[in-house]
Amino acid sequence: MKLLQERIAREGRVLPGNIVKVDGFLNHRVDTALLRACCEDIKAHFAGKPVDLIMTCEASGIPIATVAAELFGVPMLFVKKAKSGNLGPDVYTSEVQSYTYGKPVTLTCSKNWLHRGDRVLIVDDFLARGQAMRGLIDIINQAGAQLTGIGIAIEKGFQGGGDGLRAEGIDCYSLAIIEEANESGIRFRE
Amino acid sequence: MKLLQERIAREGRVLPGNIVKVDGFLNHRVDTALLRACCEDIKAHFAGKPVDLIMTCEASGIPIATVAAELFGVPMLFVKKAKSGNLGPDVYTSEVQSYTYGKPVTLTCSKNWLHRGDRVLIVDDFLARGQAMRGLIDIINQAGAQLTGIGIAIEKGFQGGGDGLRAEGIDCYSLAIIEEANESGIRFRE
Repeated sequence: MKLLQERIAREGRVLPGNIVKVDGFLNHRVDTALLRACCEDIKAHFAGKPVDLIMTCEASGIPIATVAAELFGVPMLFVKKAKSGNLGPDVYTSEVQSYTYGKPVTLTCSKNWLHRGDRVLIVDDFLARGQAMRGLIDIINQAGAQLTGIGIAIEKGFQGGGDGLRAEGIDCYSLAIIEEANESGIRFRE
Repeated sequence: MKLLQERIAREGRVLPGNIVKVDGFLNHRVDTALLRACCEDIKAHFAGKPVDLIMTCEASGIPIATVAAELFGVPMLFVKKAKSGNLGPDVYTSEVQSYTYGKPVTLTCSKNWLHRGDRVLIVDDFLARGQAMRGLIDIINQAGAQLTGIGIAIEKGFQGGGDGLRAEGIDCYSLAIIEEANESGIRFRE
């Protein structure tokens, strides 16, 4: 998606460790007009596919998932990373390795809000190695729900998570796939 | 706000420790249509007041703050609770006691996205003792920004945070103020 790629090229910064910093418009300060344009593109891609629920991971996936849920006219469910007693004991959990925090994180989702047969579209801001995505899919499978597809703002193509999911036949649609990010700049997949 | 109060009365559950569980529509599974109605009410309350930025705390404040930012046509800035190296060293921080997690939490906000003179509306899903709110206000003050006001979905009136802020002259507007929550039910402030 041209609009997002231009924004990344203009305002994104590459930090050591192939980290692409877009905290001015995506995952700290958030430009909701840009998110709406992103979600319209995602909606067009999944037109005609069944979507009962938008699912994401806290915290930085929540803004784009919120806008997507409004556009699709369905609820948004955000899976928790932090431990909170408030969800109660009746939960699905999946342990994943967090790239951002460098340690294992337990994704937690109440059984009350994800059901057998629910057709789920995962929407997230970033896809790198796909660990969080694997955790969400694990939870969807535990519930007997169905994965309709995945909509991502920025995929770090060089980390392989998205290609792995696509190789398994999952409709993983990313608006900007970064093929290379280093001190000389950011190059997108054609 | 009648719509939100009715929804709390119908679907909210009171857990031991005066916890009001609204995870089916506000802070786990999210009803974005309800959030939009809430934010329209908040926008009407702050009509004519200057708002350059919507600010909230991750994670459960993000959905309502995202919808508010779209409605106000301004960016949304969510302050981080989890430690992430990605923000860099140039940050404002404020340590607060978390009611949900029962331990101190350091709120962190990049200096890049909050500036002297910015007129800030805080929007959050819950207000209880007001600890997180104090942390956000501390960060706003450190930046030399100005607090226009606070818009809250659910205030737990019996925990005093909102009344304390209002006693200091802050325009703290809550859509539903719960006066009492126990096994016999939920009672709202008139």
